Formats: sequence, structure tokens, C-alpha cells
Amino acid sequence: MSAPRAAVVAVGDELLLGETVDTNAAWLGRELAALGVAVSRHYTVGDVEGEIREAVALAMTRVDVVLVTGGLGPTRDDVTRDAVAALLDRELGEDGALLDALRARFRERGYGRLPEPNRSQAMVPSGARVLPNTAGTAPGLALEHEGVLVVLLPGVPHELKTIFSGPLRQLLLDRLEGRLVPVRHRTIHTSGVPESRLSELVEEVLPADVHPVSIAFLPDPLGVDLRLTVRGAAGDAAEARLDEVEALLGPVVAPWRFEAASGDLAEAVSRRLRALEATVAVAESCTGGLLAHRITMHPGAGDVFLGGVVAYANRIKVDVLGVPREAIERDGAVSEAVARAMALGVADRFGADAGIAITGVAGPDGGTEEKPVGTVWSCACFRGRVECVERRLHGDRVGIQWRSTQEALRLFGALVAGG
Amino acid sequence: MSAPRAAVVAVGDELLLGETVDTNAAWLGRELAALGVAVSRHYTVGDVEGEIREAVALAMTRVDVVLVTGGLGPTRDDVTRDAVAALLDRELGEDGALLDALRARFRERGYGRLPEPNRSQAMVPSGARVLPNTAGTAPGLALEHEGVLVVLLPGVPHELKTIFSGPLRQLLLDRLEGRLVPVRHRTIHTSGVPESRLSELVEEVLPADVHPVSIAFLPDPLGVDLRLTVRGAAGDAAEARLDEVEALLGPVVAPWRFEAASGDLAEAVSRRLRALEATVAVAESCTGGLLAHRITMHPGAGDVFLGGVVAYANRIKVDVLGVPREAIERDGAVSEAVARAMALGVADRFGADAGIAITGVAGPDGGTEEKPVGTVWSCACFRGRVECVERRLHGDRVGIQWRSTQEALRLFGALVAGG
Repeated sequence: MSAPRAAVVAVGDELLLGETVDTNAAWLGRELAALGVAVSRHYTVGDVEGEIREAVALAMTRVDVVLVTGGLGPTRDDVTRDAVAALLDRELGEDGALLDALRARFRERGYGRLPEPNRSQAMVPSGARVLPNTAGTAPGLALEHEGVLVVLLPGVPHELKTIFSGPLRQLLLDRLEGRLVPVRHRTIHTSGVPESRLSELVEEVLPADVHPVSIAFLPDPLGVDLRLTVRGAAGDAAEARLDEVEALLGPVVAPWRFEAASGDLAEAVSRRLRALEATVAVAESCTGGLLAHRITMHPGAGDVFLGGVVAYANRIKVDVLGVPREAIERDGAVSEAVARAMALGVADRFGADAGIAITGVAGPDGGTEEKPVGTVWSCACFRGRVECVERRLHGDRVGIQWRSTQEALRLFGALVAGG
Repeated sequence: MSAPRAAVVAVGDELLLGETVDTNAAWLGRELAALGVAVSRHYTVGDVEGEIREAVALAMTRVDVVLVTGGLGPTRDDVTRDAVAALLDRELGEDGALLDALRARFRERGYGRLPEPNRSQAMVPSGARVLPNTAGTAPGLALEHEGVLVVLLPGVPHELKTIFSGPLRQLLLDRLEGRLVPVRHRTIHTSGVPESRLSELVEEVLPADVHPVSIAFLPDPLGVDLRLTVRGAAGDAAEARLDEVEALLGPVVAPWRFEAASGDLAEAVSRRLRALEATVAVAESCTGGLLAHRITMHPGAGDVFLGGVVAYANRIKVDVLGVPREAIERDGAVSEAVARAMALGVADRFGADAGIAITGVAGPDGGTEEKPVGTVWSCACFRGRVECVERRLHGDRVGIQWRSTQEALRLFGALVAGG
């Protein structure tokens, strides 16, 4: 039996014009797949009634569920509610209970009376089920029409997530009961090997057909993920096949593999340190706090991370981290000597078992012939051992900053694993 | 005359499954709009030949240019080249020059011989123009078919950008010469006012029809942007109308407005400090380096930013920033006294004119009844004046970290503006 299919129609000129990156698409894709609904296509259209009607009508011919996101706000350009009501031939009427809830929300938050534009958010197409929005003012609206469930959701990500995770999820479970075929993935994260090399290595160990497992390579600037996918309930034969394929791949990917639920090498490094009951402190120049941010964005960072110093000005490298002024004068701030002194300095001053340091030229200015933009020194120390490495990285300023932190984490991960 | 229209077809199971956020859509939207091409729709489909063919065929009925992104990689799941060649009835043939270039690329980078899977990247549909990819292995491919220009591009963002910005941009300029109608925007950034309140204020001062200017509200968790749009060449009457509308809006948005090319309040704050020839240092606990990162992701940060301390462990707050141990014991680490001591401490130790500090509970653990997750104290000091503020913020860990830095930047911006 095939899984129920869903389409997503995202509405907003800002998406077509590129003023906003559509993160809802990915989030909905993940949630629906995990629930057992396959998203088979995704359309994006502008804030134009005719275009919305056309896209929703097209989507409805092919799927069980259509999620329409965006265009439910209180302002003039929000026309999704009108467009879908017209398409499905429903009258819009003001919902008294919704209006009261909106008024109460504004009062409670100290915003005073309900602004007139927000009244439109209490308008409901006839026959629609209201999906309460506890995170904002536009509720979700669910309509049954010729066997298809059409759901309107606000485009603001945390509001969409709130409605999906609560009332919509339950509605989908009820409506699609017995038909849901969850997709299960297993993702192998790697960093430090090019996609084509990894692909070649994988082809060498895997038979051409690993059905029902499918394998995808997902490269990004920090690494390549290998994603194994099967459809089916947990505990069945597909699960065993997943194990088998993963076991075949294990030795091939080992040199570059890391384990992290988030897919972030920083989480993997924290996890290793936690197992060793060790602590770390970081010293950053060109990455300006990004390394510390990557470590602390994950829950539980406090178990291993003591803190860091962003030594952006050279004076701070000397005064706060104890980098010898002569090292900066002799070798320059972007040098092995300075990276080493930063790593050892921060570990010493913070009383940490380990230190990681980065100093480089993130650009766009500051490059020289000898040390062009992208020249970055990383250094890691751990219980008496020290490793430093120089890289020439490509990309824009923020790209170089991200790649620099990745190089430093990789260097540090290898040092810790080696001890 | 209406602008030439484009459609984008993004290919990749990982996009539908939500494993990857599609950032190409927004980037292409911006670049095409600036060039004078209107993106009228965007389709996303999986790595399935039939689905790709269908989406490209549908897109071709409506526009002048179809950009197909993704699925040109060297691995088994990359089928875009085959799907489009089949749809447009073209033979695929190996391009000798491309193959040589691929081989040379692998040699030069020290990867050795060309991996077998990469040979597929030298396959070119008959009649296609090759758009060289200096950033990767899959070239762009441009095909004319029944008056529509169909262009295949790799999905890896920096490769797509490299090809678009070079050979594709020139191709579009040549092909659409005389028909391009650039879209111009003016964006007014605000932070600290809800969208519906802003909308109400805007309605009060603007006549219902501000044709040919259109106005959109773009909310995100950190603020609301107001985008004014007109189509037409620079220097015409539309420009004057834009000025007029912006002037009407000026007084209304003034309390919350900030100026930043990137749309980031951190850039605006750096800009104000630069004008005052003042320097700043930051001290962070729960935001773990994010505030420093937000300041240093913008070029030229070094003019005003000396550095920062991530004082994640309480011991570091005391040892490195000089926070009195008694303040932590008496009021807790998340308190006005500690935030104040952190801001003054980092400014003093770093010899900066200004200090910004954040201490709070980002969660998911660590909340108490008195100080639940989301409780955050910010403090800013500037030339003898100090301001602190407490907030209860919503969202997940990273959401709270971002909102915390936004609150701190807003507090600091007001303090600096007031001096």
C-alpha cells in the first residue's frame, strides 16, 4: 500500500522575490514523512488570488492532503483565505468565538484593543474546522473537499509549527488512520571527504540493488551526509535490511564519520568530551564567536564547555589570552605560533582540559599576497598534546567563518579520538 | 510591457523530505528580480524522472525561462539530465572538452584519477550550451526549446551561484535584451513592534492606493520589515513615488527603525558605534557567542568590536569578568546584578567604550518556577550610563538565544542613540 500523499502550496511574494528563505517547506517535509505522509510536490506562488487558486486546484488533483502556508496575516497583501474560499465555493463568515479570543489575546498582552486589520483573522470559510493557534493570531483552517483535506496555515514558522504539532497532527492521524507508512531514515554524517570520492567508495562495497533501502548523498559546504531510507513500520524486515546496509558502509566511511543527532560536528565533539568527562574552552579571532555558538546551540553544552574568548583585536589576544606580543610582531596574528598560544592560553586561563583556537583572514578585506583571504590557522590542545593546521578556505566571509570552525572541530575531534 | 517570466524547478528528495532547506530558491528569486525577470512560480519535486519531466513541461507552458536546479551530481540518484533530455527529445553525448576539464580538475586538486561516477557529468544533451562551472564538477546546461530557455544548474548553492553570476547572467541579458524590467525595493527594517500594530499605523498615514508602489509586511521572529516595491528603470517617476511613500512612512516607523544593508540589527549597531568612533566588548552566558558572531559576521566589525567573553560556567564570570561571587550566590547567575557586572566587567577589562551582557535560561533544562526557560537579563553600558532589562522570551533553545541577542542589541542601540 502506498503512503497518503501531500502537497504543500507556499504563498508569498517574498518567497518568489527571495526576501525570505522558506524554512517551512523542509520542516513540514520532515514532520509529514515521519508521520507516514509522503510530500510529493511543493509549489510556491505569489500573493495573487488567481495564482493561489490555480496552484491549490492543481495540487488537489494529485494528493490526499494539501497544506497551504502563508497569506493569513492581517494586512492587505494576505489573500489566501479569500482565494481558497472562492476556489472551494465557501462563504466567509466572522467567527464570534475566534473574535473574542483575538480580543482577549490583545488585552492580555497589553496591546490594548484589537487592531481593525486583525478582524479579518476571525473570518472562517463555511464548513471549515478551526485549528487553534496558541502562538499567534491566525488560526489554521481545515476543509474537506471532494475527498481532499485542504489546510490553511500561517506562514510564520513558529505559528505553523505550533498548529501542526498540536491540532493538525491529531487531525491527520484520525483522518489517515491505517494508511500511514512512516519513512525511516538513517543518516551517516561525514566531514572531510568529497562527495564523488565517497560515492565511489560506497559503490565498491554495495551491490547495485539494495532494495528496499535507497541511498542519497547530501553534500553541503561542511560535509556530506549519506542518507539511507526505507518505508514501512518499525520492526519489520526493512529494519534488518537497513542494519545490513549500514554495516556494509561502516568500514568505508569510518575515517570521516561522526555521530550527532543534529548533524553538527560541534555536537559530536561535545559528546566525545562528555564521555571522557573533559572540559573545553575556545579562543577565536576571525570566527568571532561562531565556534562557541556552534558548541552552545546544543542542549547540555554546559557539561563540557566552560566558555571562550573572542580576541578580535590583537591587544585582547595579548591581554586576555597571554599571547606573546613578540609572536604577533614576528609571525603576524594569523600564524601557527599565535594559534598555539591562543589555544594553550585559553585552556590555561579557564582551567579547561582542552583548548581550541582559530585565527585567520575571513575577508573581504585584510588579505595579503602571503596570507590571502581564507588563510586560517587552527590549533587544538588536549591533555598535553597539541596539533595545529593551516588551511586556505574558499567562500564569502560567513562561509569562511563556518568552514574555519569545521576545520578546527575536525582537528580537535581527531586529537581527542587519538588520546 | 510586462517583464519576462521565469519558473524554477528544484529537484531533490532531500528537499521534499525536509533534509535540506532550499536556499537556492530565495537567492535565485532575488537575482532574477534585480535583473528584471519575474519568478512567477517555483516547483519542487523528488528525484524521479517522471516527476521532473512533468514539472518542467508544466513550467515551460507559462514562462520564458525555466531554471532546473539539482540532480546533476555524480551519484545514482541524480537523474535531472536524463529527464530533461528525454522531455526535450535530445540525445545525450559525452563532451570531450568537458571530460578533459573534469580530469584536469581532479588531477590539480590532488584527488588523482577521475572517479568513474563523475564521467556522467561530461554528458551533454544535443544542442545544449555548456555553462562552465568553475566551482565544481557539474556544468550548467542551457537548451532552447519552442521559445523557452531551459537551464539546468547544480543544486550545490555556491556552484549554482558561480554559474548564475557568470555565464548564465550574460546569457539572460543577451537573450532577454530590451524586455527586462528590474524590480526595485526599498526595505524599512524595524524591531520591537508587532506586525499588526505596524500595519495599523501604516494604514493611518497612507492613502489606500499608492500605485505603482506596493507594500508588504515581512515579519520574522526578530522584527518586521516593510518592503516597498516598484517595477521600472531607475530615475523614472516610480522612483519619485517611492521617495514620497517612504517619506510618509518615516515618522510612523521611527521608534523601531534601524538601518542595515543586511537587515541585521547587529550591523546597524556597529554602524552607529563607528560614527561615534566608539568601541564595544561583549559578555555572554546563555547566548554562548551568538552576540559576538552576529556582530562579526559583517565586514568591518574590527573597527568597533574589540572582542568578547563567553562566560558559560559561573566560575568564568567571576575569574575572567570580575563578577562578584556574592552577586551570583545572592541573586543567581540570571539576575540584574550579574548582567550589570558582566557588562561593566568586560568593558573595563577590554578597555572598550561600551559593554553588552546577556545572562539567561535558554533551555531546554535549567528553568525554575521563579526563572523559567526564556528568562533573560540584558545589560548595556556606554560612557558611564548603564541600562538593564529583563525579558521572558518564547521559542526553542536557539530561538531564545537569537531573541536574547536581539533584545540586547535593541537595548544597546537605544542607549547609544540616547547619548
